[in-house]
Amino acid sequence: MPSFFSKRDLHFNLYELLKVEQLTSYDYFQDHDRQSFDMVLDAAEQIANKMLHPLLTEMDRKEPQLMDGTIRVHEGMKAITKRFGEDGWINATFSYDEGGQQLPVTVQNAAAFIFQAANYSASVYPFLTTGAANLIRSFGSKELIEQYTPLMYSGRWQGTMALTEPNAGSSLSDISTAAEPTSEEGVYKITGQKIFISCGDHDACENIVHLLLAKIKGGPAGTKGISLFVVPKKRITENGHTNNGVTTAGVYHKMGYKGAPIAHLMFGSDETCLGYLVGEPHKGLTYMFQMMNEARVGVGMNATAIGTAAYYASLAYAKERPQGRPITAKDPTQPQTLIVHHADVKRMLLFQKSVVEGALSLLLQCGLWADLAHVTEGEAKERAELLLDLLTPVAKSYPSEMCCQTTSAAVQILGGAGYTTDFPVEQYYREARIHPIHEGTTGIHGLDLLGRKLTLHGGKGLQYLMEEIKNTIAEAKQSDQPQLLDLAARLEGALERVQTVTTSLLNLAKQDKELFLADATLYLDFFGIVTIAWQWLKQAIQAQKGLMMTNSEENRNFYQGKVATANYFFDYELVKISSLALRLTSHTKGTVEMQPDWF
Amino acid sequence: MPSFFSKRDLHFNLYELLKVEQLTSYDYFQDHDRQSFDMVLDAAEQIANKMLHPLLTEMDRKEPQLMDGTIRVHEGMKAITKRFGEDGWINATFSYDEGGQQLPVTVQNAAAFIFQAANYSASVYPFLTTGAANLIRSFGSKELIEQYTPLMYSGRWQGTMALTEPNAGSSLSDISTAAEPTSEEGVYKITGQKIFISCGDHDACENIVHLLLAKIKGGPAGTKGISLFVVPKKRITENGHTNNGVTTAGVYHKMGYKGAPIAHLMFGSDETCLGYLVGEPHKGLTYMFQMMNEARVGVGMNATAIGTAAYYASLAYAKERPQGRPITAKDPTQPQTLIVHHADVKRMLLFQKSVVEGALSLLLQCGLWADLAHVTEGEAKERAELLLDLLTPVAKSYPSEMCCQTTSAAVQILGGAGYTTDFPVEQYYREARIHPIHEGTTGIHGLDLLGRKLTLHGGKGLQYLMEEIKNTIAEAKQSDQPQLLDLAARLEGALERVQTVTTSLLNLAKQDKELFLADATLYLDFFGIVTIAWQWLKQAIQAQKGLMMTNSEENRNFYQGKVATANYFFDYELVKISSLALRLTSHTKGTVEMQPDWF
Repeated sequence: MPSFFSKRDLHFNLYELLKVEQLTSYDYFQDHDRQSFDMVLDAAEQIANKMLHPLLTEMDRKEPQLMDGTIRVHEGMKAITKRFGEDGWINATFSYDEGGQQLPVTVQNAAAFIFQAANYSASVYPFLTTGAANLIRSFGSKELIEQYTPLMYSGRWQGTMALTEPNAGSSLSDISTAAEPTSEEGVYKITGQKIFISCGDHDACENIVHLLLAKIKGGPAGTKGISLFVVPKKRITENGHTNNGVTTAGVYHKMGYKGAPIAHLMFGSDETCLGYLVGEPHKGLTYMFQMMNEARVGVGMNATAIGTAAYYASLAYAKERPQGRPITAKDPTQPQTLIVHHADVKRMLLFQKSVVEGALSLLLQCGLWADLAHVTEGEAKERAELLLDLLTPVAKSYPSEMCCQTTSAAVQILGGAGYTTDFPVEQYYREARIHPIHEGTTGIHGLDLLGRKLTLHGGKGLQYLMEEIKNTIAEAKQSDQPQLLDLAARLEGALERVQTVTTSLLNLAKQDKELFLADATLYLDFFGIVTIAWQWLKQAIQAQKGLMMTNSEENRNFYQGKVATANYFFDYELVKISSLALRLTSHTKGTVEMQPDWF
Repeated sequence: MPSFFSKRDLHFNLYELLKVEQLTSYDYFQDHDRQSFDMVLDAAEQIANKMLHPLLTEMDRKEPQLMDGTIRVHEGMKAITKRFGEDGWINATFSYDEGGQQLPVTVQNAAAFIFQAANYSASVYPFLTTGAANLIRSFGSKELIEQYTPLMYSGRWQGTMALTEPNAGSSLSDISTAAEPTSEEGVYKITGQKIFISCGDHDACENIVHLLLAKIKGGPAGTKGISLFVVPKKRITENGHTNNGVTTAGVYHKMGYKGAPIAHLMFGSDETCLGYLVGEPHKGLTYMFQMMNEARVGVGMNATAIGTAAYYASLAYAKERPQGRPITAKDPTQPQTLIVHHADVKRMLLFQKSVVEGALSLLLQCGLWADLAHVTEGEAKERAELLLDLLTPVAKSYPSEMCCQTTSAAVQILGGAGYTTDFPVEQYYREARIHPIHEGTTGIHGLDLLGRKLTLHGGKGLQYLMEEIKNTIAEAKQSDQPQLLDLAARLEGALERVQTVTTSLLNLAKQDKELFLADATLYLDFFGIVTIAWQWLKQAIQAQKGLMMTNSEENRNFYQGKVATANYFFDYELVKISSLALRLTSHTKGTVEMQPDWF
C-alpha cells in the first residue's frame, strides 16, 4: 500500500514553519507539548491505516441506500463512528470542562487531514458533528448544551448543518422552511424540506441532530429573517426519545464521495416536528457562519487531502512503472526507464506536490490563526481573526479548484491504468469534484473575496496580509541564498500586480458594480496563486535553513524537494497571474452583455 | 430532453465556413450536393435521437461483463450495430466499387459528431470498424480485402486496433507480441497479449477482426521491426469459421466510457492463433499510423462531442433554474432570477461554447483537408496533407484536455445537482477524462508537435499554417468592422509570439535536447490556443457577413452568439498565451533536474 500522506511534511509545517509548540505558552494549551502533539498525529495515523483506508474502495462501491425510511451506510461506519467518539476526536479542541482536551485547532486539523487523506467520506461524519456541537455550545442555552453535546461528543449522535433547500441553493435569503412558535418558549413547529444534507440520516449512529436554518413566521424577509434551530431526528422526552417528524425523502446518488450519505429531508410533513431555537431569533445566519467558516476551511483541507493521496498514488506508480527511454538515449535494445525520470511526468508530479503542499501550509496556518484568535487579545487577536476571515475564501477555493486538476494529473501519470477502477486515482478524481460546489461554490467565494472581504473593516485584513507577505519577502532578502533572493523579487513583483489589479477593480466598482464583480472568480484564482506563492516562499526559507542544519540524507532530500517545488510553483504557477492580470484589468463587458438567446 | 448538439452550427461549419459543396466539383464527389449532405445529417440525427441517446445513461450503469469467455455488452448494441451497417455508415466515405457512397470525410465526420454527442460509447463501435477496414483496403492483399471488408462494412464483424501491451503502453517499440512464419506465405502464428483494446470482444457482432501489431521473429529491434496483421477472433476456413486462439482475459472497469467494452486479450495462449500479414513485413507501424491519425482526429471529435452535450445540458439548466438576484437588485421580496443572467454563469457557458465550437471548426477543417488530400494533386494535395499532419496533435489534444475543463464547468453550473446521477453532466465529466489518455497521451502529442511535426519536411507544414492564418487576418483587416480589426490585431500579436517562442525553443534544441522537450506539453497547449483563436477569427468574419445578410431573428441570435464567443475566446483564452510564453522562453531546468528522491 503506498502511503497517502507525508507525516514528515506535517511535522515540517507544525514545528518548523508554524512553530506550533509556542502555543503552549498560553494557559489554554499549557498542558501540551511537542510530544503530546506527536502522539495525536500517531494516533490519527493508526486509525487511518487500520480503520479508514482499508474501506476506501469498498465505501465507494457499496453506496448508501435508503431502506424502510432509513439510510443504510457501510457497516464499517459503526465501528469508525464509535472510535472517533471514544477516542475524543469530536471535541478534542474543546475545554476540559466540556470533556475536551484543549488541543490546538492547528494540531487537530493536521490529524483530521490524515483521516481525510485515508478516506474522505468516512472523515466527514465526525467533522460535521464537531461543527454542529460547536454551534450549540457557542450560542445555545445551557439546557440545549447539556442535552445534546455530550452524546454528540461520544459519537453516538450525528450532527449536521441543514441549510440548502430545493429553491434556495446558493441563495440562503430564499429559504422557506418555517418555524411557528408553540406555547413553550424557545420551542417551534418546523415545516419544510432540506436537500443535500451531508450525513442527514444514517444507521451508524443513534440519533441525528440537525442545526437547521428556518424562518420564524412574521420575521423580516431575506437573510435577516433566518433563525437557527436544533432539530433532532428523535426528540428527547421524559420517557426517553420519540420520533420528531423528520422524514428521509431520499438519498442522493453521486459521482463520488459515495461513502457519506447525502439526504433529502422533510420536516413536519407527517408528524409534528419540533425545533429548539439556538440563541436569539433572526440571528441564525450569523451563528451559522461560525460553522460555515469552519466548514469552508475544512473543505479546503478535504480537497488537499484527496489531492495528497492522489499525488502519493501516482508517485508510487511513477517509481515502479518502466516505460519508454530518455529523450537522449532512445536505443530500443536497452531496457526501458522508470517513468519518474521523464521530465513531463516530473512536471505532473511537481504540479501536484506544489499545489497540495502549498495549500496544506496555508490551511494549517489558518488553524494557527484560529488558535491565536482564541487565546490572544487586542491587536494580535484582531490580526488573527481578520487574516483568517480574509483568506477563508482562498483556503476553501484554491485547493478545491486546483485539486480537480491535480487529481487529473495523477490519473494522467497512470495513463490507461489510471482510468480503470484497478487503481484509486479515478476515485480521487471523482471525489475531488465536489469541493468547488459545496460550502459555497467558487463563484460565491469570488464574490465574497472581491465584493466583501477586501474592503471589510476598512481593508484592514488585506493590510495585515500584505504586511505578512512583506515580512516573508524581507526575511528571504536577508539571506544570502540566490534562489531565495530570486523568489523574493518575483513575489514582490506579484504583490505589485495584486495592488494594480485590485485598485483597477475597486475603481471600477464605483462606476459599474456588475462589471466589477463579473470576473470575481478569476480574481479569486489570481489572489489564490499569489497567496500560495507566499506560502512557498516561507517553505523555501525554512527548507534552506533546514539544509544548512542537517546531515541526514533523508532530510536533505526532503528539503531539496521543498526548494525545488517552490521554484516549480514560481516558474509554472505564479506566471499564470500575468494572463489573469491582463484579463482582470481589461474590463471588457463580454459576459455581462451576453444575451441568453445568443447561446 | 435538451438537445445535445446544434445542427445550425454544423450547417454553419459545413456550408458557410468550409463551403463543403465545392467538393462536388471533384469527380469523386460529383454525385453529391448540399441536399444529399443535409440528408446525411438528418439521418444521423434520427438514429442519434431514437437509438443512441435513449441508452446513454443505461449503458453507463449496466457496464459490459465478461461471462463464459465473452464480453456481454448492453443488449441494445445489437440493433445499433446492425443499423450502422445496414445504413452504410461504416463505409460511407469509401468508393462505389467498395459498396461505399463516396461521401466526403468532412460530412461523415459531422454525422459521426452527432452520434458521439448522443452516446459516446455506442459511437465507438462503428468508428473502429471503419478504421480497421480502411487499413485492410489500403494495405492488404486482394484476398484479405475480399474476405474481411464486406462483413465489416455490414456491421456484422467488429474491427479493432490492437497495439498496447502490458509492458508497452506509450512505448510501441517495446511490444513483444510475436509472429512466427508458417509454411503458408503471409500466415503467421501469433503469441502475446494486448491490453486496453476498445471493442476487443463483445457479443453484439458475429466476429472481431483485430488489426494487430506484432514482431516477426528475427526482425529488427524497436519500431522498425513491427509488422501489421489481421487477426480474427474466428478465422475463416473452408467449412465456415473456427476459433482462432484469441482469448478474452478480462474486461476493464472504468471511470466512464462504460458502454464500450475494453478488453485484455491473449493470443495463442491455448490454441493456435493465426495472423495474416498486411502489406510488407516490418512496415506495420507506418501502416498503423493511417488508422492512428484518423483515430486521433476522431478522439478530438469525441471529446468535443461530449463537451458539446455537456454544454447544452448546462445551458438548458441555466435557462430553467431560478436562483439569486442581479448584483444590482438584491431585494429579497422580489422573485429570483434565472441563473443564465448571472455574469459568472454566462462566463462558464461562454467558456464551454468557445472551446467546443472552436474545436469543432478545427476538426471539420481537418476533415476537409483529408478530402482535399484525396481528390487534389500537386501543391494543393501537399498543403492539405501537411496541414492535417501538423495539426493532428492539436486536433487530438486541445479538445481532449479542454473538454475535461468544459465538462467541469457544466457540472459547476448545475451545482449540487450536477454532482448527482440525476443529471447527465457528471457522466460527461467522467467520459471526457479518457481522451487525454488514449490514442497517444497529451505528453506524446506534445513531443510529436514540438519534436517532430514543426520541423518535418523542412518546416513546410508550419509555413503553410502561418500562411493560412495570415490570410484570415488579412481578410479580417479588409472589413470595416472594428471588432474584426481588433481581433485580427490580437491574433497578429499572438502569431509573433508563436514565432518568438518557437525560435527560442528550436535554438535550445541544439544545446539541450531534454530541456528543449521538457515542456512540450505546454507548447502544445500554447500552440493549440492560437490555432483555436484562428478558427474563432474565421467564424467571426463569417458571422459578421451573416449578420449583414439576414433578417431572421434566429439567425441574428446565432451570429451575435458567434461574434460574442469569438470575443470571449480572445479576452479569456487567448490571453493565456502570455503566461505560457513566459514559461516557455525562460528555460529553467526545474523538471529536468528534479530527482526522484526529492518527491
